[in-house]
Order: sequence, then structure tokens, then C-alpha cells
Amino acid sequence: MGCPEAQAEVAANCLNQADLRGVDSHGVARLSGYIRLWEQKRLNATPNMKIVHETPSTAVLDGDLGLGLVTAPEAMRIAMEKAKTAGSGWVAVKNSNHFGIAGFHAMLALEEDMIGFALTNASPLVSPTFSRSRYLGTNPIAVAIPAASQPPVVIDMATTTVANGKLEVLQRKGEEMPVGWAQDKDGNPTTDPTILKQGGSMLPLGGDRQHGGHKGYCLGSMVDIFSAVLSGANYGPWVPPFVAFLDPPANPVGEGIGHFVGAWRVDAFRPADEFKAHMDNWITTFHNAEVADGQERVLVPGDPEREMTEERLKNGVPVQQAVIDDLKSLADKFELTFDPK
Amino acid sequence: MGCPEAQAEVAANCLNQADLRGVDSHGVARLSGYIRLWEQKRLNATPNMKIVHETPSTAVLDGDLGLGLVTAPEAMRIAMEKAKTAGSGWVAVKNSNHFGIAGFHAMLALEEDMIGFALTNASPLVSPTFSRSRYLGTNPIAVAIPAASQPPVVIDMATTTVANGKLEVLQRKGEEMPVGWAQDKDGNPTTDPTILKQGGSMLPLGGDRQHGGHKGYCLGSMVDIFSAVLSGANYGPWVPPFVAFLDPPANPVGEGIGHFVGAWRVDAFRPADEFKAHMDNWITTFHNAEVADGQERVLVPGDPEREMTEERLKNGVPVQQAVIDDLKSLADKFELTFDPK
Repeated sequence: MGCPEAQAEVAANCLNQADLRGVDSHGVARLSGYIRLWEQKRLNATPNMKIVHETPSTAVLDGDLGLGLVTAPEAMRIAMEKAKTAGSGWVAVKNSNHFGIAGFHAMLALEEDMIGFALTNASPLVSPTFSRSRYLGTNPIAVAIPAASQPPVVIDMATTTVANGKLEVLQRKGEEMPVGWAQDKDGNPTTDPTILKQGGSMLPLGGDRQHGGHKGYCLGSMVDIFSAVLSGANYGPWVPPFVAFLDPPANPVGEGIGHFVGAWRVDAFRPADEFKAHMDNWITTFHNAEVADGQERVLVPGDPEREMTEERLKNGVPVQQAVIDDLKSLADKFELTFDPK
Repeated sequence: MGCPEAQAEVAANCLNQADLRGVDSHGVARLSGYIRLWEQKRLNATPNMKIVHETPSTAVLDGDLGLGLVTAPEAMRIAMEKAKTAGSGWVAVKNSNHFGIAGFHAMLALEEDMIGFALTNASPLVSPTFSRSRYLGTNPIAVAIPAASQPPVVIDMATTTVANGKLEVLQRKGEEMPVGWAQDKDGNPTTDPTILKQGGSMLPLGGDRQHGGHKGYCLGSMVDIFSAVLSGANYGPWVPPFVAFLDPPANPVGEGIGHFVGAWRVDAFRPADEFKAHMDNWITTFHNAEVADGQERVLVPGDPEREMTEERLKNGVPVQQAVIDDLKSLADKFELTFDPK
């Protein structure tokens, strides 16, 4: 694609980390999707990223229609630079594309004893509470917090009840979906996991109003506003779709999709050793909480993905045949050697 | 109590705003609870608040065991001062007490065209996913975002499925509770709204694992860590209880309870007029989303509380007789005139 080597490396690293962490939907399986967007000139492989506005602790980055896998790490780099002098740094990104797993970007801050933050908006699939319009994406929130001898606390969550991938798994198995995950085109509860193909929509975290779905809607709205209204990207129903077979909405209200990343230096609040020792205590305390009936153990945020990474680094990453075939045809298209083990 | 007049005024204003916004549990009904904590010397009515550490965009405020109703507005003032020069400001507060409604503090930023942020930890009533230990409070998140001709977007949400008050309402009515709100002492699902009195615990937003409860647990953890591990307050099971008849835990890991507040100047990212015009468009767009079957209209965050305020400013705030009796006996104790209309 002509992507500069340093940018290609950071993007590939982000995809590999997704596969290692068990978020298969956001790993190498996405590569052909990015290529299709590039072929349609909806993604720039050689972006000239520019800071268009800044203060000591904030900036807006114009991503020049680059991959989010490239623009978000650059935004994190700027945020961390600002945090070094100002205590914290916050960068809103416009004119970008899909950025892979949010957790990857937030975790960049850990290397410098900072708390990392990463948000992005995404193609609309989710309805506001009481609505049947698809007006929000799965709009994830990621937060990474360093510890001392314990592994870091890493939150990486869609602001919906479940990720879209879980519906696809049930579809393949021919199973029903729990109530509270999605609704039909008229906004009624449903257990049909194919409902999105019939005009249905996903539900914000919490599900219906009675179970706090309006709070998930609040969180998804916050992510949309920080990522896009602060930066000058597209928001709400104007966010361009990830899939190349759907056209971006006419009359855009901004440029591309938006991200919002940030970092606080831990020692901008208290000595890093002190903070990290208390984080160890926090983590150990929660691991040792009493286990509920029928459960095995209590986890802290980031445990499942870290354990999956350890397992996959040891035994390899299982990749579906469909993904291997897809990568093979990409290799053919670009005249590259592809030799999966 | 000897509280300086300016501090008493801001505290009273916070309680009144809670009543106006319809959050009756956090209004004047709390006053006698604060007094009981003060009588036990667990709350200082004349706090000497001090910044103990700072950078251009961050600070830690020692609340000197003051009321959160006083320490959190002071922390917001410092955060907003920092935002004026650094673009953003973040203040962690330790050695504090209950701060009323989170939304009040976040909304202070709106006056200056800033986005306001307010978090607090709270007495532990909530279990981590897969646990039956009460290790987290209802740990709210509040975010206030200014608009132009539209009212601001104001998020003010506990990170649990519902507030504790909803369980109390069902108890009084003798009704059952939906599954997903709370669990029994062993961590099993229940529909008994009296379950907290029997050793049960509230569930994080989402409820059980299948409905995304682990995401609510992530959010509650984030609030606990930002409010207390960054500031040096008590976290997790060490957070002191609000009720005076329960003793604070032995061997505290920090001082008092913790808050975390912050502000971003909108024009640290893009011109305020531009941002606010797009917020108007965001709000109007979401209001005009298609309504789901059986629903009347689509709301944006902050609508219910704003409409309640308008209604109560016009028709008055209904106060339960028990609360009036409580205020009457406080007036007698402090030899004040109390003459409710």
C-alpha cells in the first residue's frame, strides 16, 4: 500500500496484539477490510498527520484520513509528551479510520508510568434508549493503569452489552441470543442473533431502561462527543461505515471518524512507587475477594486478555481457515510470499 | 456546626440542586446524616483544605476531613483555574466525605465553557463480577458538556444497574425486584429488594456476566482507583461507611474517601462557538431519532433532571413528612427557627 515502514510496523503490532489478547475480530482478520477502504480511497496509506490546535495539555490531530492504527499511537505519543511537562495530555483526533483495539493505545502509557486513556467512535449499530435508530457505534473505552509487581489493570470495553462478534458466534451455532443484547427494527426485544441483518440494532450496556441501558447510552454518547465533536470528526449517524460496500453518509458533519486519547503521569498526583504499591494492594485485595456460588475466582480488569496472551505466546494463535484464505489472496494481490505454518 | 458561611452556602446549594433535579436521596434528606458524622468527629465542619502536590494540569487536594459538598467544589475551582492556562485541569481529593450528587460538581465547569468531570468512591455495597464481597461503592461518573442554544448534555450515573434508593422504593411497596439489580449473600440471583439487609450486594451496571456486568465492574474499579489510589484516600473495602452507626474499617489504607474532578476547556480543542454549534446539532439529531415501539420520545443525557428542575422550580419540591420531622429535630437541636410552608 506504500505505507511507510515505521507506520506499517506500529499498525501490524496493533493487529498482532489484538490476536494475542484474544480479540480475534480486531486482529489480522481486519486486514482485508482496511485494504478495501484504501482501494476506495477512503483510507490514506501515507498520511501527513498534523497538529491543528494545541495548548500545554491538549491538542487536536488531523489524521489526514490515515489508519487509526497509525494515527492513534501518534496521538498517544503527543499526549504523553504533553503529560511529561504539564502532568496530563489529551489529544482528539479527526479525519481518521478504525483504530483496532482501544486497549493497545491506552497501554502505550504504561511504559512511562502513566495512566492511558483511549476512546473512539465507530460505525453506527447501536440505538439510543427508547429509540430504534442506529445512531451510535460500539464506542469503546480503554483505560490502562500501572502497578508494581502485579500486572497492570487494563479496561477495554465496548459501551454495548456485548460486542457484535458475539452475535455472529451464536448465528454460526444456530443458537438464540439472551434478551438485552439487541432489538428488532421497531425497537422490540428479540432473541434472534441475525436481527442486525433485518434492520435491528444493538443495545447500550445495561440493555433496556429497567436494567440501566440509559447509562450505557450515556457512556456511548460521551465517547462519541469526546472523539468527534471535540476533534471535528463525524458523529452519531454521520460516522462512516467500516465496511467498504456501504457508502459514507452524504453531507458529513466533520472529517472521518474520531478518537480521543490521553495520559496522566502517575507522579503528577503522588510518587509513582507509592501509587504502584497501592495498586498492587488493590489488585491483590480484589483477587482475594470471596467467590460467589458456582464461580471459580474473582478477576480484575485485564486478567482474561493477559492470560490469553500468555497462552497464545506459548501455543500460537489459532486463525480460522477463512482468515488464512483471505490473507492468502491479499498476498497474491500484492505479489507477496505467504507461507502460514 | 461552625461551618464558614461561604462553605455552608455552597454545601446547601448542592443539596438543593439534588432536590430540584429529583435526586431526593441526595438532597436535604442527607443533612442529619452529615450531622451525625460530625458529632462522631468523622467530619470536619471547618476544614483547612490544602494542595499537597501539583503540576500545571494536576493537583491533589487534602480535604482535611471536610464535607465533599465543600471539598469537591474547591477541587473543581482549582481544576478550572488550571484549565485556563494548561487547557485541562485534574484534581484528586483525599481525606474527604460524601459529596452529594456528582452532577452538581461537573456542571460547575459549564459556566466557563468547559467540560466538567466528577467521580467519587463511596461506601462498599457492590460486588465485583463472580464475587459476593462488597468491595465497591455505587461509584458515580458525571460529565457535563456545554451546548449553544440547546441545554447542556449532563451525564450523572452510578456505575451500578440501579441506585440503592430504587430497592428501598420496592421494599416500601412490597414488590419484587428485577433480576440483575442485586444478589444474595452467596452471590445468587434474587428478586428480594430487602436482600442488602441480609448480606446481599448490589450488582455493577449490566448485572450478570452474560449481560455485561463485568463492564460495570470495570467502570466502578476505574472510579475507585482514580478517586482514591491517585489521591491517597481509602479504596475498595476500606472506604468508610456513610452511616454513622457503622464504624470505619480498622487499618485504613488512606485518608477518608476520595473524589476525582476535572475540566477541559472546550477551546483547548476547537473554537467554543464551533463546538457548541455542533453540540446543538448532536442534541437535536438524537432528540429526533426514531422512537421505538411503545415509547414516547428519545431523550439525551440530562433531560429528565432538567425537566424535573423546571417543574419543581414552578410547583415546589415535595418533601416527605419523615424528612420534615428530621429537619425539625435538627432545628431544635441547633436552636434554629424551622417553619416549612
